[in-house]
Amino acid sequence: MSEHIEFMKEALRLAQKAAFFVAPNPMVGAVLVKNKKIIAKGYHKEFGGSHAEVDAINQCSDPAGATLYVNLEPCDHQGKTPPCTDLIIKSGIKEVVIAKKDPKRNGIEKLESAGIKVTTGILEEEAAELNKKFFLTCEKKRPFITLKAAISIDGKIAKKRTEQTWLTGEESSKYAHQLRAEHQGILLGSGTVNSDNPHLGVRHNNGNDPLRIILAGENAIPKDSKIFRDENYLISKGKNLNELMQELYEQNIHSILVEGGARIYNSFIKEKLVDEYIFLIAPKVLGKNSLNFSEFEDELPLEILSMQKLGQDMKVHAKAKWDSNNG
Amino acid sequence: MSEHIEFMKEALRLAQKAAFFVAPNPMVGAVLVKNKKIIAKGYHKEFGGSHAEVDAINQCSDPAGATLYVNLEPCDHQGKTPPCTDLIIKSGIKEVVIAKKDPKRNGIEKLESAGIKVTTGILEEEAAELNKKFFLTCEKKRPFITLKAAISIDGKIAKKRTEQTWLTGEESSKYAHQLRAEHQGILLGSGTVNSDNPHLGVRHNNGNDPLRIILAGENAIPKDSKIFRDENYLISKGKNLNELMQELYEQNIHSILVEGGARIYNSFIKEKLVDEYIFLIAPKVLGKNSLNFSEFEDELPLEILSMQKLGQDMKVHAKAKWDSNNG
Repeated sequence: MSEHIEFMKEALRLAQKAAFFVAPNPMVGAVLVKNKKIIAKGYHKEFGGSHAEVDAINQCSDPAGATLYVNLEPCDHQGKTPPCTDLIIKSGIKEVVIAKKDPKRNGIEKLESAGIKVTTGILEEEAAELNKKFFLTCEKKRPFITLKAAISIDGKIAKKRTEQTWLTGEESSKYAHQLRAEHQGILLGSGTVNSDNPHLGVRHNNGNDPLRIILAGENAIPKDSKIFRDENYLISKGKNLNELMQELYEQNIHSILVEGGARIYNSFIKEKLVDEYIFLIAPKVLGKNSLNFSEFEDELPLEILSMQKLGQDMKVHAKAKWDSNNG
Repeated sequence: MSEHIEFMKEALRLAQKAAFFVAPNPMVGAVLVKNKKIIAKGYHKEFGGSHAEVDAINQCSDPAGATLYVNLEPCDHQGKTPPCTDLIIKSGIKEVVIAKKDPKRNGIEKLESAGIKVTTGILEEEAAELNKKFFLTCEKKRPFITLKAAISIDGKIAKKRTEQTWLTGEESSKYAHQLRAEHQGILLGSGTVNSDNPHLGVRHNNGNDPLRIILAGENAIPKDSKIFRDENYLISKGKNLNELMQELYEQNIHSILVEGGARIYNSFIKEKLVDEYIFLIAPKVLGKNSLNFSEFEDELPLEILSMQKLGQDMKVHAKAKWDSNNG
């Protein structure tokens, strides 16, 4: 068992290597083991590319008799690439160890019916956490939604509506770019676009620019706004949020970062369309003549996942607890 | 030098042993060293009791020729106990190493004129931090003021005025009692007394009950309120806050914890009568129909000193930065 854990850890480590490039696919890593030694490693490197299992097997001259460790159930279907199960069976692998089942696949059944021993549930929690966006999307048929808000310690987001306030410091700004790289779409209201004219690109990190999704309000967005700099944007007007999420899901946008402003936060919270929160809290109190983060009426319970100092600011990562009072 | 640091660390460690019992006196520890070995240790154990230097010397049969390490300049005046400098000189100690000078004393001068070698500034920052309340009180002639607020992540302190809201959890409540034990007075408004009927005693910790200071408003406080359970309270009505702080200082109340509610917070912040903040942040958003922490108009810059998870909540310790924008 402890040797299973050791090899699965390596598969999980490999999976993370392509963190910013495989979405909406899950991150998957694989190792092949013979006589308690790793003989090949692989991972899913980019959307549309080889799956991790295939990557590992292809790097191995003699996989027959080996044990395959992979953090997600191998696929049994023809997608952009052929089914992984076929190659696993053909290669003579005798055992497959899986961290977490894939809700969309039946790979295990196929492997077992070919006489391969299958073990599941090794480091399952870590595997669930690694691909939490993927699993939630499978279950809810909508993108994983992260709400990011820079707030003062008294819960304000700006001095006044329409007036831009930089609350947080340099480190928070870098982190905000990393967050963008971890999502396939960034969503904000046209009010924020008009007041801040944000670039919304991924500047400080490697990673693809996410789709810029703008919820348009009454006022037109100037044509020379930075968000129009290339075709990678989507303007949505007067659409129900649940419908919009459905559309994004069907367009393979499986994770979005909601960046505000206050009205947008409110709409998402009202529809319970928030999975996790990132608060970047600035070390100041803005006082009463400021714009509240919370314009909604109900109490909203959260669970703090982590907190850390980020330069002068604090970063708080929390999870929505819709079920406890508001579910 | 490194041996100075080692012995001074021990003096500082000893100083903290009586943390909750010496106020308004500073916390002081002392060690006597001969041939690089500690031959006696002492600390100031309670208000009115022996000073640390005296405590150490009294435990030593032959202090002559020793070096004394003490985190605060020895006193040269007759207070509740005789001047420490006299005993140091009489005992034949040849060197005194001091972390931080005492703004109210001239002990160093007296020691040097008796031919004793004096070194200062060893672990001065740590010594300043340990007795920060004492040093600020010496300088400003008013108590050290800590504002403690339990807030939601959107900066609210309660659902509605007059309605009690328990925001934070068990661990925060224990910590709040510890905080009380670290201050000589607890101050709150009669509104909070009337709505919460708080006990304000130090329940979970050893330590003396602090003075209960109530700022009275329009409404009378019921006679059976818990704050009236013994004589250890002070009701203040219609008095200027600066005057009240002056009075408390003169009554030897040199540290107070301001516990709210919103109007009281506002008054202290308006008068710049806050030195440090403790925010206990609950993992929830209370929404717009709630009472704001910040009812004041100006922006208020802080510096985050530390943050940590406290059960389900977050504890944030911050320092007022009055000088940067609002000084």
